[in-house]
Amino acid sequence: MYIPPHFLEVDEAVISGLVEHFPLATLVCHLGDNFVANHIPMLRTLENTYVGHIAKENDLHQLFPRGMAALAIFSAENAYVSPNWYPSKKDNHRHVPTWNYQVVHMHGRITFDHSRKTKLAVVGQLTKVFEQQYSGDEAWQLSDAPRDYMEAMLDNIVAFTFKAQTIVAKSKLSQNRESKDFESVKASMEENGMVHLANAMEVTKPKKDS
Amino acid sequence: MYIPPHFLEVDEAVISGLVEHFPLATLVCHLGDNFVANHIPMLRTLENTYVGHIAKENDLHQLFPRGMAALAIFSAENAYVSPNWYPSKKDNHRHVPTWNYQVVHMHGRITFDHSRKTKLAVVGQLTKVFEQQYSGDEAWQLSDAPRDYMEAMLDNIVAFTFKAQTIVAKSKLSQNRESKDFESVKASMEENGMVHLANAMEVTKPKKDS
Repeated sequence: MYIPPHFLEVDEAVISGLVEHFPLATLVCHLGDNFVANHIPMLRTLENTYVGHIAKENDLHQLFPRGMAALAIFSAENAYVSPNWYPSKKDNHRHVPTWNYQVVHMHGRITFDHSRKTKLAVVGQLTKVFEQQYSGDEAWQLSDAPRDYMEAMLDNIVAFTFKAQTIVAKSKLSQNRESKDFESVKASMEENGMVHLANAMEVTKPKKDS
Repeated sequence: MYIPPHFLEVDEAVISGLVEHFPLATLVCHLGDNFVANHIPMLRTLENTYVGHIAKENDLHQLFPRGMAALAIFSAENAYVSPNWYPSKKDNHRHVPTWNYQVVHMHGRITFDHSRKTKLAVVGQLTKVFEQQYSGDEAWQLSDAPRDYMEAMLDNIVAFTFKAQTIVAKSKLSQNRESKDFESVKASMEENGMVHLANAMEVTKPKKDS
């Protein structure tokens, strides 16, 4: 990924926050002359280690029984930025349209695991984290489902572990703009309902006023 | 991409609508043993033909001077779906968590173009479409910027054309659920501010009631 220095995201709290808030990874691998991409929720379990599962009918685990190199991309909100949103446009008109976004790219390796024990552990971990987030005290639990149903569900999936070897992140959030332009873009994001982008801009203050 | 038949999106209006509403493509190519992905707004200009531009400092155009195979992924909103949102859970508890999303994958080929004429045409097309969408009657135009500034901007980019050879799309929108569960998930999407997902569900009615 091309990252100008002022858009390189190095804050580990920001990076882990992005993965937690936008866990549906775009998981890309390469097969012969083509790409295969799937969209899979992934959860961090250890440093540089993420887990998830795919459908058994997804042939990835057959194509790559010993595992595969993969790129996992986590994407937050993104939004167009109009030159009209820069108050300084009136002074100098030296602006062009752009796009704001935050992404995390993890280059690493996937290995599959067909054991019932691992599959149960992975769906248990995913369920616990997401249900706490969305259902709170009413969190749904694996044990709420009948045993035969849950066993059939486990039979239909394959668990995987993704070990990240390189992690790079980009926060393109108008932080290279002068303060009044930055604040105006942030306000436009709020008006357009891009709450996460506006909050991310608040965290990523302009680094210079030039 | 693994797509069960009931999640295969074949509606061309839905597919072109996704690309128009979520134009920031994840553009993946492959280099040696690694992946390179960039996030670039892309615009349809002809059937199966999309244009965009990258920064001249992005070394893609030097690594692949004759063009490259690429996967362009367009992603709409995505959201967790809790089993608690299915009214039928109370009856049978035969549900597990899942994730709803819509994506378009275009497999094709990128070629770069360094001519001033093409670069100006591409930024003009992108600006016209996005400014009409965001600024309406107040649309910013290239001619609003001083000539020297615009020439410097054009010097700093490289235009590209992406020719899509294969397009596949997936709408995973609870359309395989019974009506009362589907409607309840849609209501939860609305409550959680996932307006586009809720609207997309409205378009993609349940195909069966089983």
